[in-house]
Amino acid sequence: MSISILFGGKSYEHEISIVSAISLSKIINFTHFIFLDPSHEFYLIPQEKMNSKTFSSLEYKQCKKLLLKQGDFYISSFFTEKALGVRKLLSVVHGGDGEDGILSSLLEFYSIPFIAPRTSACVLSFDKHLTKLFAKERGVRVLDYEVYDRKMAPKTLTQYPSIIKPLRLGSSIGVGIARDKESLEYLLDSAFEYDHRILVEPFIEGVKEYNLAGYKNLEGEFVFSVVEEPKKEEFLNFENKYLDFSRTSTLSQAQITKELEKKLQEAFRILYDNCFEGAIIRCDFFVIDDEVYLNEINPIPGSMANYLFLDFAHVLDDVGIPSPKTIDVNYTYIHKIQKAKGKA
Amino acid sequence: MSISILFGGKSYEHEISIVSAISLSKIINFTHFIFLDPSHEFYLIPQEKMNSKTFSSLEYKQCKKLLLKQGDFYISSFFTEKALGVRKLLSVVHGGDGEDGILSSLLEFYSIPFIAPRTSACVLSFDKHLTKLFAKERGVRVLDYEVYDRKMAPKTLTQYPSIIKPLRLGSSIGVGIARDKESLEYLLDSAFEYDHRILVEPFIEGVKEYNLAGYKNLEGEFVFSVVEEPKKEEFLNFENKYLDFSRTSTLSQAQITKELEKKLQEAFRILYDNCFEGAIIRCDFFVIDDEVYLNEINPIPGSMANYLFLDFAHVLDDVGIPSPKTIDVNYTYIHKIQKAKGKA
Repeated sequence: MSISILFGGKSYEHEISIVSAISLSKIINFTHFIFLDPSHEFYLIPQEKMNSKTFSSLEYKQCKKLLLKQGDFYISSFFTEKALGVRKLLSVVHGGDGEDGILSSLLEFYSIPFIAPRTSACVLSFDKHLTKLFAKERGVRVLDYEVYDRKMAPKTLTQYPSIIKPLRLGSSIGVGIARDKESLEYLLDSAFEYDHRILVEPFIEGVKEYNLAGYKNLEGEFVFSVVEEPKKEEFLNFENKYLDFSRTSTLSQAQITKELEKKLQEAFRILYDNCFEGAIIRCDFFVIDDEVYLNEINPIPGSMANYLFLDFAHVLDDVGIPSPKTIDVNYTYIHKIQKAKGKA
Repeated sequence: MSISILFGGKSYEHEISIVSAISLSKIINFTHFIFLDPSHEFYLIPQEKMNSKTFSSLEYKQCKKLLLKQGDFYISSFFTEKALGVRKLLSVVHGGDGEDGILSSLLEFYSIPFIAPRTSACVLSFDKHLTKLFAKERGVRVLDYEVYDRKMAPKTLTQYPSIIKPLRLGSSIGVGIARDKESLEYLLDSAFEYDHRILVEPFIEGVKEYNLAGYKNLEGEFVFSVVEEPKKEEFLNFENKYLDFSRTSTLSQAQITKELEKKLQEAFRILYDNCFEGAIIRCDFFVIDDEVYLNEINPIPGSMANYLFLDFAHVLDDVGIPSPKTIDVNYTYIHKIQKAKGKA
């Protein structure tokens, strides 16, 4: 099956999206590489140009520009326009544009079949506060938290260490552990550079962490990855995570009981169902006193968590993609009013 | 100030969007009329064609097609493309496309300044369940409710009368009052035609209802409309509401105390702040035992609730539109990695 990849975006995570795409290009045979530059222009990148220099040197600007129109991307030249022939698109646009629902809306509007969460699922998982509300409502535990804007930001905390996160960024950008009043001050400054609201939650030393990726397949059944216990040097900061985005090697499964694995899968199922259809997501969980807590939902995880699946090429064929809603507009009401009025 | 209007959309509310636009065209001097047809093509409608027949007869298909590109809509003819010159766009696309965040994403992506909620605010107000969670989290009361999908739909209710609503539609489509087991069955069938999930809440006979519209202006201050006490023939069904969408006459203010007006404004402010910036919305409240309850948020209300404002032309000039985020992509991390590796 032909599959194209979309990457880049106007986002703080622009560069790691490029890293994700380059990594995946080494294990998957994509039909097209579509790059979205920070000024919102689409470019068609030839396979042999899929290296980081193409982008950092701005050489990509010499590639063909693409236009998104109903049903396809188009290459326009002087007097003609040629459809690219995108059959299915995998989006690895992390952060803004990708995870905030902007691109999902575009792809849905222009009827491009795509692997990524739909708009509403993006909005729910992009904002960490909404994710907490959403998870709690569905009965999945989350850590306690507080949300502040700059004006209300705390001068000190009742509990140290605590973790400080910008409300709407992934990839650990702007995230840090406040161990005292001084580090709090520094971390708040840093987090508020990326968002006008931040989230504070307790940092639990040595907490057990497990990551699980998955999706609903063409038959509507859940398919899960192996469970990973992420290595932690306290927690992964952006530069560690950056390397994480270029992972393509399969990781060994976490040493957990079958019972815990089932619990993690059940929490994943509850979170995914009726919301994330069409996407391969990774849920990062904590386990505390045998209870599962959601830490974060990664709606477009780094390198698509490919390393957690045994056969990622098969995964890309297997994801069920929701069909667009058909709505029959027949002007019944306008006809009725016209009849009543004589004309409108 | 030049303002253009966008209407239509692939939605059950396609026709009432047309009615909204035609009504507004009678009181506002729009620069362009941009119609989105149910197959997601944009058309430029000449002012003299702004009547319902243009659409119901499909005559609009003879109008010029528009292409959305970076910074503007474009008219394409054989060898040239001409920018339309849209300076500011008012979206009256009710329901799908408009209120689910799809069009807001497009307009943001293509840098068109627009009056409508941004993507995340759309998602929160389009889904009645999310609206309830959102309001409760912000400390605004809502009625108790239950959400069901078709499989779990109740055979009977513990409380009659109750109101049945599809989870994600406005304009009262598919909404009705269940007074007994029989009417429940009929109403469930009807509601499930429009969404795969429904919301059930108590119907309170004779409850006091007040509608309040408003926005944040260019200076970041709140501007409120008069408070309206909607007429009710029990509740407005789609056909009654349909007429409501063509209202342009100013309504008399509800007879309420200054204190209650302040309470309603305060609830509006709490709901709008840091979420609906850029939009003129209408909040519909219940008042029960002197307490304010949110009934619904109308993120793109019928005919923009123009009749609640004394000078709607001024309102359109006065709405503060959020500026797009600027993000500086400088390939720092990729450069760093390239340095470390020699090349990437």
